[in-house]
Amino acid sequence: MVSALPPGGARAVARCDMLGAAPYSDMAGGLYRAYLTPAYAAAQRALTEWMEQAGMTVRLDPAANLIGRYEGATRDAPALLIGSHIDSVRDAGLYDGPLGVMLGIEAVDALNRAGRRLPFPIEIIAFGDEEGSRFPAAMLTSRAVAGVLEADALEVADRDGVTLHDALASFRHPSEGWGLMPRNAKTPAFAGVTDYLAARRAPGATLAYLEAHIEQGPVLEAKGLALGTVTGIAAQLRLSAIVTGQANHAGTTTMALRRDALTGAAEMMLAIEGIARDDASDLVATVGRIEALPGAPNVVPGEVRFSIDIRSGDPARRDRAAQAILVALEHVASSRGLAVAVEQVHDLPASPCDPALMDMMDAALADAGHPPFRLVSGAGHDAMAMAALCPTAMLFIRCRAGISHNPAEHIDPADAEAAFQAMLGFIRKLGESVAA
Amino acid sequence: MVSALPPGGARAVARCDMLGAAPYSDMAGGLYRAYLTPAYAAAQRALTEWMEQAGMTVRLDPAANLIGRYEGATRDAPALLIGSHIDSVRDAGLYDGPLGVMLGIEAVDALNRAGRRLPFPIEIIAFGDEEGSRFPAAMLTSRAVAGVLEADALEVADRDGVTLHDALASFRHPSEGWGLMPRNAKTPAFAGVTDYLAARRAPGATLAYLEAHIEQGPVLEAKGLALGTVTGIAAQLRLSAIVTGQANHAGTTTMALRRDALTGAAEMMLAIEGIARDDASDLVATVGRIEALPGAPNVVPGEVRFSIDIRSGDPARRDRAAQAILVALEHVASSRGLAVAVEQVHDLPASPCDPALMDMMDAALADAGHPPFRLVSGAGHDAMAMAALCPTAMLFIRCRAGISHNPAEHIDPADAEAAFQAMLGFIRKLGESVAA
Repeated sequence: MVSALPPGGARAVARCDMLGAAPYSDMAGGLYRAYLTPAYAAAQRALTEWMEQAGMTVRLDPAANLIGRYEGATRDAPALLIGSHIDSVRDAGLYDGPLGVMLGIEAVDALNRAGRRLPFPIEIIAFGDEEGSRFPAAMLTSRAVAGVLEADALEVADRDGVTLHDALASFRHPSEGWGLMPRNAKTPAFAGVTDYLAARRAPGATLAYLEAHIEQGPVLEAKGLALGTVTGIAAQLRLSAIVTGQANHAGTTTMALRRDALTGAAEMMLAIEGIARDDASDLVATVGRIEALPGAPNVVPGEVRFSIDIRSGDPARRDRAAQAILVALEHVASSRGLAVAVEQVHDLPASPCDPALMDMMDAALADAGHPPFRLVSGAGHDAMAMAALCPTAMLFIRCRAGISHNPAEHIDPADAEAAFQAMLGFIRKLGESVAA
Repeated sequence: MVSALPPGGARAVARCDMLGAAPYSDMAGGLYRAYLTPAYAAAQRALTEWMEQAGMTVRLDPAANLIGRYEGATRDAPALLIGSHIDSVRDAGLYDGPLGVMLGIEAVDALNRAGRRLPFPIEIIAFGDEEGSRFPAAMLTSRAVAGVLEADALEVADRDGVTLHDALASFRHPSEGWGLMPRNAKTPAFAGVTDYLAARRAPGATLAYLEAHIEQGPVLEAKGLALGTVTGIAAQLRLSAIVTGQANHAGTTTMALRRDALTGAAEMMLAIEGIARDDASDLVATVGRIEALPGAPNVVPGEVRFSIDIRSGDPARRDRAAQAILVALEHVASSRGLAVAVEQVHDLPASPCDPALMDMMDAALADAGHPPFRLVSGAGHDAMAMAALCPTAMLFIRCRAGISHNPAEHIDPADAEAAFQAMLGFIRKLGESVAA
């Protein structure tokens, strides 16, 4: 039984495991928990119970985020917000998101058992939509809390045509809905999606946001480390390239007379890889999608389209790499009698973590016996949206082989325990800094 | 008016142009003439008239090929067969196929006007199915004539479900069909598709097969030559490669820790290109189709599948290249921690032209003031099937930019005239060699 486990990291992992199947999943034989579904409500009910056991008062905010509050010594001081998301992708792993929420609950539980109050309240927030796996939008709930969501972003419907408005209406009225609402949660009245933006926290009411998350990458494992301090979320640039040559018969066109868009694209892809490798920093560049036209085995490709994704924690480094890539693409094209056109698909700015909080996290790691190590997050997280509201800190936890968004996602309970200890240390240090 | 043009190459081109629209095409706004359609029958009627004007007796064979015969000095001597196909791909060019038939008719017309008889009969054959654009099979008609067609190859239906059997039945009975049958053609009674194989010519009854065809490639144009002697049809090897790495998050997986199947495939494609380029012969190698999985811009590809097409007039050269490519692929895979699996899709043997006939063609080119030049055909032609029956010769004619299977297909009438003169020279030389 989950409840029989001693408090701490192992219980946090066990609780994630427990939420991996029905009624906490919307799919059979795997985990899929989407925003505002029956599985989502079931997970909130379990979380409500665990939050209450840890001494918290539980409520839903207007965006249907579940929030547990543990009062501080000073009742109205700005709160430390600890959270992550409880929605998942389809056929997901068990820890991407929920583990950060469970570790937050464990931290509060430990403080509560010890009768400790910090100089600030602590709120644990289980965000509802980070993955964007139901509605065609992502981080709706953390953007609402951070106050950076536009009203028109709420005009979305899921693939069955259910609008966000209707999904919220069903969710907030258990008598008409599923009957799975958190039993003791304070639920605000439903007032339409415009009400959604009222989930915004007042600026100044939040001291900081802390998120623990599995790394979803292989860096910590490769370094032999359980934990790492996140420096920020990488600036991401998405480009789309079109290489144009001449489609020709593969049998009748001699090698010398070809203008093969695909071998040109191959040379470009190796140039992109080389630029990122040579940088030897956190810079990554990826071609993930490619299409050759006309795409017949017996025709020399006349056109190739491919995506380029470039990320770094340092936007200037990312932009220098993008510039070098554009120059390399032009060079390859002109040396092969091809044309290349590159369009920008999107440009997401970097979201740096707070330097003082990073130092605090490093010190907490060292106190817990872990060598401080810093790394950038290449993936987006709720912390990215929350950075608009308050200083943010992120703790990455090693996961096996970097595998995520996959049922094979795995973490060692000992690593979760290490994260739990580091988070307690971080909270203590933050308390000392506020008191000082 | 086509009929007002003087005989020769320009008239052959004009006749192809005339057959490029209704009623000789099955599509509006372009050329599509498929086997056994109303447009096919209409083209046969026009050809019948032109063949008869050139002094030929016209018949249909059991595969619905149209054949015009010009008797020789020795009535029962094995015939010189001159031909190509009159079917086309969808939205085709006007010369791929018909030009070879028209030039054959022009050659006979010239002999007939001069009252010349060769020591052998000449038959002009308009093959019905080379492209395979109606039924899922290609070169049905030349394979039938050459006697290399299996009966079960005839169990085909077009995309409307019309079987070859039904198409032939409709075609052979004008009273029940379209009423477009060649007026004076001798038409065999319809006896089912088994009868089709009776289109086979008796071995020994054919002296040689001559086919003039547009090059469908850019070699002659690049060399500044109107004509070239074809050495044979290239041996073609089609392979399918699967490269396996590890799919990972494009944001969280550092460059050093990736096993990117697509950058691996890029290096392989450049190796394939390099092997073919370095060979500096007629060898060509092409990657025409590629697919990266999962194919999302934010995921490092874990698997890539691509086609490899390798051709050369010299099968041993082709096989050495294939071997070198396999070694290179293995080398790239092992240096990147990837796996590669290669499967053979098909292996078409080379179909060499007859060396004595090639010499004769070279001499005919020289006599007509064209520097002899030899090249391999990377594409398949009816001559490929006919090589099983008799010695074959092919003459390639320059086409603009190598463009074919496209309405932009173009040839210069002066080049067609050169081909006409070369064919007359070839026929004369063949006559001398038979008489000697």
